[in-house]
Amino acid sequence: MSSLRPVVDFLLYDWLKVDQLSQRSRFSDHSRDTFDAVLDTCERIAREKYAPHNRLVDTEEPRFDGEKVVLPAATKQAWEAYAESGMLSAAQDYDIGGMQLPYTVEAAAGAFFAVASVSIGGGLLTVGNANLLMAHGTDLQKQVFALNEFNGRFSGTMCLSEPQAGSSLSDVATRATPDGPDFESDPLGPRYRVRGNKMWISAGEHELTENIVHLVLAKIPGPDGKLVAGTRGISLFLVPKKLVGPDGQLTGERNDIALAGLNHKLGWRGTTNTLLNFGEGKFPVRGGAGAIGYLVGKPGEGLRCMFHMMNEARIGIGMAATALGLAGYYASLDYAKQRPQGRPVGPAGKDPGQPQVRIIEHADVKRMLLAQKSYGEGALALMLYCARLVDEQHTGAPEAADEARLLLEVLTPIAKSWPSEFCLEANSLAIQVHGGYGYTRDFPVEQYWRDQRLNMIHEGTHGIQAADLLGRKVVMEGGRGLQLLAGRINATIEAALQRPHLAEHANALAKALQRVGAATKAAWATGDPSAALANAVPYMQAFGHLVIAWMWLDVLLTVPAQEQARTPAHVGRVHAARYFFHYELPKVPAWLAVVETRDPTCAQMPEEAF
Amino acid sequence: MSSLRPVVDFLLYDWLKVDQLSQRSRFSDHSRDTFDAVLDTCERIAREKYAPHNRLVDTEEPRFDGEKVVLPAATKQAWEAYAESGMLSAAQDYDIGGMQLPYTVEAAAGAFFAVASVSIGGGLLTVGNANLLMAHGTDLQKQVFALNEFNGRFSGTMCLSEPQAGSSLSDVATRATPDGPDFESDPLGPRYRVRGNKMWISAGEHELTENIVHLVLAKIPGPDGKLVAGTRGISLFLVPKKLVGPDGQLTGERNDIALAGLNHKLGWRGTTNTLLNFGEGKFPVRGGAGAIGYLVGKPGEGLRCMFHMMNEARIGIGMAATALGLAGYYASLDYAKQRPQGRPVGPAGKDPGQPQVRIIEHADVKRMLLAQKSYGEGALALMLYCARLVDEQHTGAPEAADEARLLLEVLTPIAKSWPSEFCLEANSLAIQVHGGYGYTRDFPVEQYWRDQRLNMIHEGTHGIQAADLLGRKVVMEGGRGLQLLAGRINATIEAALQRPHLAEHANALAKALQRVGAATKAAWATGDPSAALANAVPYMQAFGHLVIAWMWLDVLLTVPAQEQARTPAHVGRVHAARYFFHYELPKVPAWLAVVETRDPTCAQMPEEAF
Repeated sequence: MSSLRPVVDFLLYDWLKVDQLSQRSRFSDHSRDTFDAVLDTCERIAREKYAPHNRLVDTEEPRFDGEKVVLPAATKQAWEAYAESGMLSAAQDYDIGGMQLPYTVEAAAGAFFAVASVSIGGGLLTVGNANLLMAHGTDLQKQVFALNEFNGRFSGTMCLSEPQAGSSLSDVATRATPDGPDFESDPLGPRYRVRGNKMWISAGEHELTENIVHLVLAKIPGPDGKLVAGTRGISLFLVPKKLVGPDGQLTGERNDIALAGLNHKLGWRGTTNTLLNFGEGKFPVRGGAGAIGYLVGKPGEGLRCMFHMMNEARIGIGMAATALGLAGYYASLDYAKQRPQGRPVGPAGKDPGQPQVRIIEHADVKRMLLAQKSYGEGALALMLYCARLVDEQHTGAPEAADEARLLLEVLTPIAKSWPSEFCLEANSLAIQVHGGYGYTRDFPVEQYWRDQRLNMIHEGTHGIQAADLLGRKVVMEGGRGLQLLAGRINATIEAALQRPHLAEHANALAKALQRVGAATKAAWATGDPSAALANAVPYMQAFGHLVIAWMWLDVLLTVPAQEQARTPAHVGRVHAARYFFHYELPKVPAWLAVVETRDPTCAQMPEEAF
Repeated sequence: MSSLRPVVDFLLYDWLKVDQLSQRSRFSDHSRDTFDAVLDTCERIAREKYAPHNRLVDTEEPRFDGEKVVLPAATKQAWEAYAESGMLSAAQDYDIGGMQLPYTVEAAAGAFFAVASVSIGGGLLTVGNANLLMAHGTDLQKQVFALNEFNGRFSGTMCLSEPQAGSSLSDVATRATPDGPDFESDPLGPRYRVRGNKMWISAGEHELTENIVHLVLAKIPGPDGKLVAGTRGISLFLVPKKLVGPDGQLTGERNDIALAGLNHKLGWRGTTNTLLNFGEGKFPVRGGAGAIGYLVGKPGEGLRCMFHMMNEARIGIGMAATALGLAGYYASLDYAKQRPQGRPVGPAGKDPGQPQVRIIEHADVKRMLLAQKSYGEGALALMLYCARLVDEQHTGAPEAADEARLLLEVLTPIAKSWPSEFCLEANSLAIQVHGGYGYTRDFPVEQYWRDQRLNMIHEGTHGIQAADLLGRKVVMEGGRGLQLLAGRINATIEAALQRPHLAEHANALAKALQRVGAATKAAWATGDPSAALANAVPYMQAFGHLVIAWMWLDVLLTVPAQEQARTPAHVGRVHAARYFFHYELPKVPAWLAVVETRDPTCAQMPEEAF
């Protein structure tokens, strides 16, 4: 983990120049010193409270004792240390107890926790939940719920999926009906009775906090008692595990939310994942039927509100995936430096009387390590770049803020999907470097690989991200987002062409950009979405590789040419970038071939022929 | 699993025409009827005794109770059913109780067990062990040990690795010293005392059989008491867990082999994996120090003898990987046919009032299923093709037998590595098709993925296979093996060019073949092995894709053009082949780019720059 800090420092300060944000009024009290202090604190908590327990939370997975969900004591201690650090409200205004920290620094700090133990988790869901309330809630909802999430008293969830509706939110069947004639006059917001089953709810039940704030998608039946089909019928409700008064104190009443089951997962076992039944009558409350929930925002706007949280969550998943990729890299690098095995290829290795060399001396092991570095640090650059766009969106001048918003729209599916896929490959390589030892539970890498596998699934599967990218993001606003991105990539290419040692990479990147642009047009050439989107995933893979290659080239621009060969860190970056350009970027045409031709092989496969 | 049989039947009879083997004297009693009877039996045993317990052997992993290793009762029942079926000696001569079955049929039959439960395992190690003794053992070693392995009384292991010597066998430090002045006159072979620690020994300790026959690599010290460095100092010893008399009966003496530990693995938990201490004095035997072992073959020829077993084992691993890939395919196909979720892309799916469709109707899910079919059935074709070469090597006319031997040399690293890597990708796609459910332990696919991850590691890692392919197999005998393979691929291309509907694939294959040939030359252009082999793994990946594309095209040749569109099975093959040619084969140039340039990016990465 000690290896992470210099990489973060370089990307934050040398590359993104995040310290310059202190010139903006919101961040004017900040400087590199205060940012460093935050990073120091998070690095320390992660090292002391998270890293030592990562295996423990895997082997002692959450269990239900009939009354409550039991987690290892270490999980509660980690949560408390996290909450006490103030990171839950790091980005919030001073007047509600926040630090007014740039999101970029918050995101970077989060990487330390995720490298140490992704499944103990930080405050991703809680902060996202509270941020949503800050954006869409009433003043009292903010005060009673959001603020108590920011201070760590309460935690938060997002309840979207149902057993019959995972990726297909238009099929949400949870019902919310007005709770009595005075339902509109509750100080906490219009009060409803919520009934339905929610699936895959992370942190849906535990004793880590005093209360759990569920944000639940549900439909309000029309006058005919029927639910409106489709996503436009969806509203958003705040459904607390325990009822709370307008003063923020628990009333002592338990809401009608029952744990229907804990999912037993392949990995990421430090976090409970639950099936929750809302309002099934197991814990009747205030003499009515259904769990009590308060409308957030307007009826029918639930999905729009929820997307506020989902976009943050998607970037959070990308960062988790990146951190796992880096964790595996550090573990396998340590191992490779210590493990003697074999001798060099060629004459030098022919004498078996010579001692064995350490495996890091073998070219193929270096290849596996360099691939991990190239994936992990490339992904980290992208995540911090996206985080910096969030800051620009929130605090930039209007035009820059709008550009940042649109760029984020285009980059979010990549930020979610690329690290999930390629840092999984990195984790597999980390196992491979360890040989047989990597396949045992005596080394951490197999857990990283298992934990990582979730990231292509939750918060929108790979297929959902790809359809979002090609079906929506690159064509929205007349393709302006894609043009904007191309403009930024071209600026990097232009700058790189000024430096002879980067010209080869610049030309390769220009070619890939041209190819992705052409493929986008070709995919939509007939205007038929089913033809365009049949190969959306290969398109997203190519697009992601283009973006990561761009990140690497842009990172290299930060270092003046004469410096490139001097320090080991720069030499490492040059090699990792070269790895990406030589070993990875050439895959782009292979992925795009089927996109450009709108290849119908998969779509036309008859079911009975499988 | 019911889906596997028709695929096996097609490949065995329509494609490989295995029934024609009955024209050879060794197989003259056989016919398609007897082959089918064997397949029927194996399919039934796998269905009844293996498949129901695959999850059980994962959750109840082997444990040591202080006295013995405990496995679930189901494992013993499965072993007994397997042994009773006669499959352990299926390929052996009639006069020792075998069936004289072609290896191709034996290999195909093995796929049913591996699809049902790869980690309960069949007789791979035991049969390989006994086959080695049949090739290199004395008559009495065959009778006492090999025959009792073929009948299931004893089981076998291969003990190569040591804690300090995994892939690097020249560093084996286990010592074997003559056991007394009469050591050469033991009827079971020259008797030695063996001392050393062996690591990663599968099935190294259990109670499934009356005895365990360990085949152990060790070194006989020279007159100076030192071990000869390098592989030429290695000899092979038969070290039974319990001592056996020349009559084949246990003498009642336990040999000095102690279980030093069970490895706790990521998957493949139905099979014990052990650290064994030979001759450490825990179970002193016959008043001397060291475990008693009998020399097999000549001193110093241990590795050559062991390779007899390793090549079989490598093909066996390829088949296990293939079977796991198919198991995930069948599971995710079943799920996709039943799970409703979402609506079609485009206008047809706009009405949320319409019921959801099953996910198999989505193009992206079809893509994930077709990729699995393309990987799994393509790999199965390769495994059966290799098995057919084994039969040719054993029973063909001299020239054909020699060709088969050489082709097997070249294809073995591909047969081992390609299914290990790409059927792992298939298993990941099987999880992805299941969405969140795939990440839970309520569905079988996560276990397939975990079990599969071993295959790139054991029996020679990916890196070892790649170095073997590029460093040895394609250049041995003046490159004759590669020429032979190219000749066969060209024959397929020529035949395919006669059929207009296959011409596109034929041309693509020709291009890939040309490219691989050129890359082979370019890699070796300087004659420097360290430059040539620095990118051996990308070379192997490209080579593997070439081979699988060839398999698919050759399989399609079996079906007359007018038949292609008629039956669902043929339509499926046409689509799976097309998937491979359109989505996979274009990756070949991306992998070869670094091979052709002998790209030094990885090899030149300085250690301190990681």
